[in-house]
Amino acid sequence: MSLELISQNKAFGGWLKRYRHTSSTLNCDMVFAVYLPPQAEEQAVPFLYWLSGLTCSDENFSQKAGAFRKAAELGLAIICPDTSPRGTDFDGEHSSYDFGSGAGFYINATQAPWNQHYQMYSYVSDELPALVEEVFPFNGKRSISGHSMGGHGALICALKNPDRYQSVSAFSPITNPMECPWGEKAFTGYLGDNRQDWQQWDTCFLIRRSKQKLPMLVDQGTDDNFLSEQLKPEALTHACTNAEYPMQLRMQPGYDHSYFFISSFIDDHLKFHAGHLAD
Amino acid sequence: MSLELISQNKAFGGWLKRYRHTSSTLNCDMVFAVYLPPQAEEQAVPFLYWLSGLTCSDENFSQKAGAFRKAAELGLAIICPDTSPRGTDFDGEHSSYDFGSGAGFYINATQAPWNQHYQMYSYVSDELPALVEEVFPFNGKRSISGHSMGGHGALICALKNPDRYQSVSAFSPITNPMECPWGEKAFTGYLGDNRQDWQQWDTCFLIRRSKQKLPMLVDQGTDDNFLSEQLKPEALTHACTNAEYPMQLRMQPGYDHSYFFISSFIDDHLKFHAGHLAD
Repeated sequence: MSLELISQNKAFGGWLKRYRHTSSTLNCDMVFAVYLPPQAEEQAVPFLYWLSGLTCSDENFSQKAGAFRKAAELGLAIICPDTSPRGTDFDGEHSSYDFGSGAGFYINATQAPWNQHYQMYSYVSDELPALVEEVFPFNGKRSISGHSMGGHGALICALKNPDRYQSVSAFSPITNPMECPWGEKAFTGYLGDNRQDWQQWDTCFLIRRSKQKLPMLVDQGTDDNFLSEQLKPEALTHACTNAEYPMQLRMQPGYDHSYFFISSFIDDHLKFHAGHLAD
Repeated sequence: MSLELISQNKAFGGWLKRYRHTSSTLNCDMVFAVYLPPQAEEQAVPFLYWLSGLTCSDENFSQKAGAFRKAAELGLAIICPDTSPRGTDFDGEHSSYDFGSGAGFYINATQAPWNQHYQMYSYVSDELPALVEEVFPFNGKRSISGHSMGGHGALICALKNPDRYQSVSAFSPITNPMECPWGEKAFTGYLGDNRQDWQQWDTCFLIRRSKQKLPMLVDQGTDDNFLSEQLKPEALTHACTNAEYPMQLRMQPGYDHSYFFISSFIDDHLKFHAGHLAD
């Protein structure tokens, strides 16, 4: 597994580095970014995985979230994968912002032709961690977070692997993809029509089946255009209440779906994760 | 002077708002952004003008600098103009990244056809302040900062109007445009071949003529690709030393020309300005 360094920028005493590698899970070349805090030059550090939303690449978070100041202070590395396989060019792969390229949904596709490449769940939860945790100075503790489609991704990765993460958080997550237009479109395309096959990729379903609880923080803006149709924080609250899952949901008045919202509260999320990563 | 609101995003308890207006100085419609900190809902606040670099619009700083957290804490409004007239479409206006659109250089052109629109110095130092300081809650104190071409812009605006600003700062400024390729190309195109006409737009020349000193902070990365050919911090140091101008230049080891560099030190600049704006 060789890594090709694409770029590096010093930031807050640490380094943002972007790499290209060949993913055997996705059968294509992928780019990801890692922010290494200054502490990583001397010691192993905990890793936070960040999963981005629809249309994003590895770059949106690095450029817009304003996260590296606090990550440098806390000694936290941040790993930013891309949001889908790239360079595959199936019919229709680039025609929608919410399906195909830029919209892998962090699930493993079963339907042709998508199943040849769209295995983003295995990529972000297995292949990429195995790679970066060997190459960079990893102290054995990881957490996960994300935005929108990536909030959904972070929640399902954590709920399906509670032993692997110390904590999970999300901004404006798609909480119940089985019951919203974005999720129904993606799950139909990647998984087929049988809704039973969708359940293992739905946060609300997984919450109901969960035995082991992880610290979970969710921020949601009240002026988010996608709030009621796509994101459904009330479905998450309902599932957590029924399952006695101790999730903290913060409704943030006046905030929208943008990175200006994420930047306003990313420090809280980094402190939340750092606290649990130090346990 | 009417303002059309294009977008607004809540950030750190304040608001980033983008507006379109018709500029009489530039003879075209222009877009600018203003970040209003939470304090501006209750009281008048000081304004910091931010001038961006080549190829930028009003958006780069807002999205990438990570400045609003500290601006909200300090109660500082930030005004971000665009970097050139827009929508004029002269022959050759869009063919270079360093001349024409996106590259107004914050000077007043004298050469046709540019002189019909390219009056960015008057726009950023007169017309836009007159507009925003009337519309938004301004407490009478302003400072100015910028990056690269915008660092040059901030320095010449301050040096030409020391009574109007409390302080000036710059990241990676073009310090001596008369003597570097970017400046020579732009000044020849906008001002003609007579180098005497260039002097009033050159920071090093203006420093030598300055009587009134302003607090001045400059940050420059040592790994900036443009350092020796275009930016020439040593020319600024030489001019300031000769003129006994008390400029603080900080060479930042390992940092480059990107917004990752700006984000790493923007808090220092905001604190520097806030201190002088409170005087």
